[in-house]
Amino acid sequence: MPSYRAPVEDTLFLLNDVLGLQRYANLPGFSEASPDLVEAVLSEGGKLAAEVFAPLNLLGDQQGCTRREDGSVVTPTGFRQAYEVYAAGGWMGLSVPEEFGGQGLPHVLNTAMQEFVSGANLALGMYPGLTQGAIAALLVHGSPEQKSTYLPKMVEGAWTGTMNLTEPHCGTDLGLLKTKAVPNGDGSYSLTGTKIFISAGEHDLSENIVHLVIARIEGAPSGTKGISLFVVPKFLVNADGSLGERNPVSCGSLEHKMGIHGNATCVMNYDGAKGWLVGEENRGLAAMFVMMNEARLAVGVQGLGQSEVAYQNAVAYAKERLQGRALTGAKEPAKAADPIIVHPDVRRTLMQIRAFNEAARALILWTALNSDIAHRSEDAQQRQAAEDMLGLMTPVVKGVLTDRGFANAVEAQQMFGGHGYVEEWGMSQFVRDARIAMIYEGANGIQAMDLIGRKLPKDGGRAMMAFLTEVQTFIKDHGEDEGMKPLVGPLQAGLNDLQAAVMWLMQNAFTKPDNAGAGATDLMHLLGQVVLGYMWGRIGKAVLARKAQGAGDERLEAKLVLGRFFMERMLPETSLRLTRIKAGAETTMALPAEAF
Amino acid sequence: MPSYRAPVEDTLFLLNDVLGLQRYANLPGFSEASPDLVEAVLSEGGKLAAEVFAPLNLLGDQQGCTRREDGSVVTPTGFRQAYEVYAAGGWMGLSVPEEFGGQGLPHVLNTAMQEFVSGANLALGMYPGLTQGAIAALLVHGSPEQKSTYLPKMVEGAWTGTMNLTEPHCGTDLGLLKTKAVPNGDGSYSLTGTKIFISAGEHDLSENIVHLVIARIEGAPSGTKGISLFVVPKFLVNADGSLGERNPVSCGSLEHKMGIHGNATCVMNYDGAKGWLVGEENRGLAAMFVMMNEARLAVGVQGLGQSEVAYQNAVAYAKERLQGRALTGAKEPAKAADPIIVHPDVRRTLMQIRAFNEAARALILWTALNSDIAHRSEDAQQRQAAEDMLGLMTPVVKGVLTDRGFANAVEAQQMFGGHGYVEEWGMSQFVRDARIAMIYEGANGIQAMDLIGRKLPKDGGRAMMAFLTEVQTFIKDHGEDEGMKPLVGPLQAGLNDLQAAVMWLMQNAFTKPDNAGAGATDLMHLLGQVVLGYMWGRIGKAVLARKAQGAGDERLEAKLVLGRFFMERMLPETSLRLTRIKAGAETTMALPAEAF
Repeated sequence: MPSYRAPVEDTLFLLNDVLGLQRYANLPGFSEASPDLVEAVLSEGGKLAAEVFAPLNLLGDQQGCTRREDGSVVTPTGFRQAYEVYAAGGWMGLSVPEEFGGQGLPHVLNTAMQEFVSGANLALGMYPGLTQGAIAALLVHGSPEQKSTYLPKMVEGAWTGTMNLTEPHCGTDLGLLKTKAVPNGDGSYSLTGTKIFISAGEHDLSENIVHLVIARIEGAPSGTKGISLFVVPKFLVNADGSLGERNPVSCGSLEHKMGIHGNATCVMNYDGAKGWLVGEENRGLAAMFVMMNEARLAVGVQGLGQSEVAYQNAVAYAKERLQGRALTGAKEPAKAADPIIVHPDVRRTLMQIRAFNEAARALILWTALNSDIAHRSEDAQQRQAAEDMLGLMTPVVKGVLTDRGFANAVEAQQMFGGHGYVEEWGMSQFVRDARIAMIYEGANGIQAMDLIGRKLPKDGGRAMMAFLTEVQTFIKDHGEDEGMKPLVGPLQAGLNDLQAAVMWLMQNAFTKPDNAGAGATDLMHLLGQVVLGYMWGRIGKAVLARKAQGAGDERLEAKLVLGRFFMERMLPETSLRLTRIKAGAETTMALPAEAF
Repeated sequence: MPSYRAPVEDTLFLLNDVLGLQRYANLPGFSEASPDLVEAVLSEGGKLAAEVFAPLNLLGDQQGCTRREDGSVVTPTGFRQAYEVYAAGGWMGLSVPEEFGGQGLPHVLNTAMQEFVSGANLALGMYPGLTQGAIAALLVHGSPEQKSTYLPKMVEGAWTGTMNLTEPHCGTDLGLLKTKAVPNGDGSYSLTGTKIFISAGEHDLSENIVHLVIARIEGAPSGTKGISLFVVPKFLVNADGSLGERNPVSCGSLEHKMGIHGNATCVMNYDGAKGWLVGEENRGLAAMFVMMNEARLAVGVQGLGQSEVAYQNAVAYAKERLQGRALTGAKEPAKAADPIIVHPDVRRTLMQIRAFNEAARALILWTALNSDIAHRSEDAQQRQAAEDMLGLMTPVVKGVLTDRGFANAVEAQQMFGGHGYVEEWGMSQFVRDARIAMIYEGANGIQAMDLIGRKLPKDGGRAMMAFLTEVQTFIKDHGEDEGMKPLVGPLQAGLNDLQAAVMWLMQNAFTKPDNAGAGATDLMHLLGQVVLGYMWGRIGKAVLARKAQGAGDERLEAKLVLGRFFMERMLPETSLRLTRIKAGAETTMALPAEAF
């Protein structure tokens, strides 16, 4: 049976040494986050993930969810109890303002906890994950009354949340949506339509479910300009906050999916369900994007979570499984064979996954910290810089971390040979679960288009220019340091490739947008490799600083090796990505559709 | 529901125009393979795959196999009837000598048919596939009596075959095996032990099952030098060829797997089962390798098969699904949105898969042709050259085609967005089924080690030198041809990378074998890209020859675009692979096992 251990120690090192969390004590909530408190929170969270969530993972996959004839949905054995432990621990509101019952701590801590939860049990972790997204949207766009009605209950975990966008004929292209909202004359609306792929749309974990739904108000313009956001509770809420009558919104069926079987993916039918407008009429997409951006980062974190748990189990197997002898002579001659971790190709696999995981963890925490700064800083310039970086990195975190997270789960599974293909070992589940992260909250091709079409040109390319400058400055500041040379030399090469790609796109994509489209995925991964390389540079710097203080140890020493491995073997991918981008769209678009 | 259409036309073009099948009329069986006959055979085979095998694929995945309490196994509805159609059509013996009831046709035709079958229904296709492997092993190593006892029945499909290698504690490292064979004194042996992951080990498709089993004869040396091969029929065969008593070999349980649910993966218990030695005592691995090499090529073909069927279904979806507008302006303004095939990132995906598929098909047919030459030519030099190339390409076909085949199935699934994750669309099954091909018949890391440790240094590197010379000669012969320039220029760059990698390994891997191990997977993919590029060179040449005869058409024209796409965007991967190989093993092996 697979197991999970939360990477608490590495997370603390990243927060304290690499990102210097204590330097942000001026931000609201940060002064409370003393090193001791952070360590206590993450240790406790890691324990919850490893001891309560992880043991239910394989079982949840095997049992899946069941829809009863009355439309109610039963989650796997133990999910409800585990969710209650999570809720009771106050995890839902970790970074929600105290006025709504939260703890007001930095979002970056919540992000670390999201990794633990989604590494331990992705399907279960999605229930609170979606609720946190819905909380974020209501915090920004909800009316004071909506906030006081829904937020405290959601923060305490008594009510959960969902996000209702997709319809059978429209996923990416939401302008095509048909769900209709008709004003009731009392400030409420009647919603009618069908939503699909609604994660956690119906289940038995909470007393009430708060659906955030996009729909078109009767008579609104067609396309994306006529989309409004509504809050539609499963049970209507009485004036005193108690639950009232059942709203006609129900789960029509559950999807049979490749993975995340423990999460209920529902077809939701709105049959004149009562809802209330969130934010302004016809401005629903903007409101929904608060939730979506939050969700995109959380999904990137899921990619890392699955990569980490797959890595941990592959390591355990590689140390136990005896097969063949080391090329350099038997390592354990007393045994029938050596453990397979002696084989270079097995090592390569493990190094590759781990060199990704540690840098990816740095990236999500750095991005979450930028989100904190963007939302909490009083310095407008600092806020803008953080917001720029957050926007630029969102598609990278979502697209690159899930693409690589899935690929890593596959590589980890591969190390098990035939056993990896047998469900009871759990490696197949990691692969099948990780697969969804590349798809939902905007398939990765959409992330790539978001990067190249929106984030890159936005404000005259300000965000990208800031990133290029930041990395270049880092290289300049540390290029002469002997210990840093194996890291910053290759990083410069990667940065040059990124700069060349941006330059080429500036010259070739504005006039021919297909050149952008054909290079979008490669640009996303090129930027991803450079930012991961930059994270390795920053990790290396922090390790060397520790060593200079005489505080080095084997665990820190290993990071320098991992960083070099990344630079030697992974970062050089940038050159291939640049070559592809510069190939342009010509051959890609040359054939008529009929030729396919 | 997903569908499948066999790529008969493309296969014929490859056989006739690219490989020039008719030039080999001097080989036994080839003179019968006139263009008309080849076309008739493949058309018929394609029909069988598309109309009989494909419609059962999704159903087979959903039903899976069931083991009854008595140890018998029930295959999914329709599998038996479909298998009977296959057997009655004479497909099992397509390239088996006529004296055993086969048709004696070239193996290359059988390989084409294997692609169709495994694209249409991988799980079902494995039953005859394993039987063909067992037939091949008996043809080479069986005694005359064994051949006459088993082959005719297997060739007509009345009996199927299996390959029994793996045990719970040993897969790759077969020297550890424990299954024991005790001589009965009458020329037979009693086999006792447990084999796992036995595909088609028990089922209801055939009257009898002929197990080929490796075991250690009592008192034989330990390790691989004491392994012998046995034939162990499920039902003993009477002197008159009729079935006698049940042999004590039985299916103890079925594995619950990620995919190929329609194929019964059995734990096989041998409880003193009667078997007969195949080939010489203690030389069982060599005998088993006949079957294994055959199987490795067939598994590479499976990788292509899944890539092809995933491509076809992705194309159909991309033409139908309306979402968003082309970057260059609406293509179908009358509709609510454009079909997604207008989007460059979707095109990129489709082009990438197809540019692989067509070259991979050329590679498997070229390799199968080399197998025909190696086994049938009377010219010793021609035989040796073909055998060298066959040996060199076997790990590439197995490793690269299955790695890429799986990756392509994932990319094709991605195009469906959320629908790709829902089982009823069938894309998930292609991914799950394709996954096994990277694992069985030697996980791909083992293929890479086979290439770098055995095939590359064998006979002083003769096979690799011959390949490098062949491609270099091709480039020289066509480098001045205007039409070929977009293909051969990049091919030269790829070839240079391959040469540099081989040179580096010669200088750095003999003294430090870990340098070979750490670069093995990259070398396999580097060679793979170059040979696929070489295939595109040869396809391009054949297209240009047709055009010169005034026989060009849009389908052929498209191949020139696909070839250029491959050269611009896929072949440049060689440079990244070379960089990784030259990084050597240092960082890969630097950490102690405890650091993981």
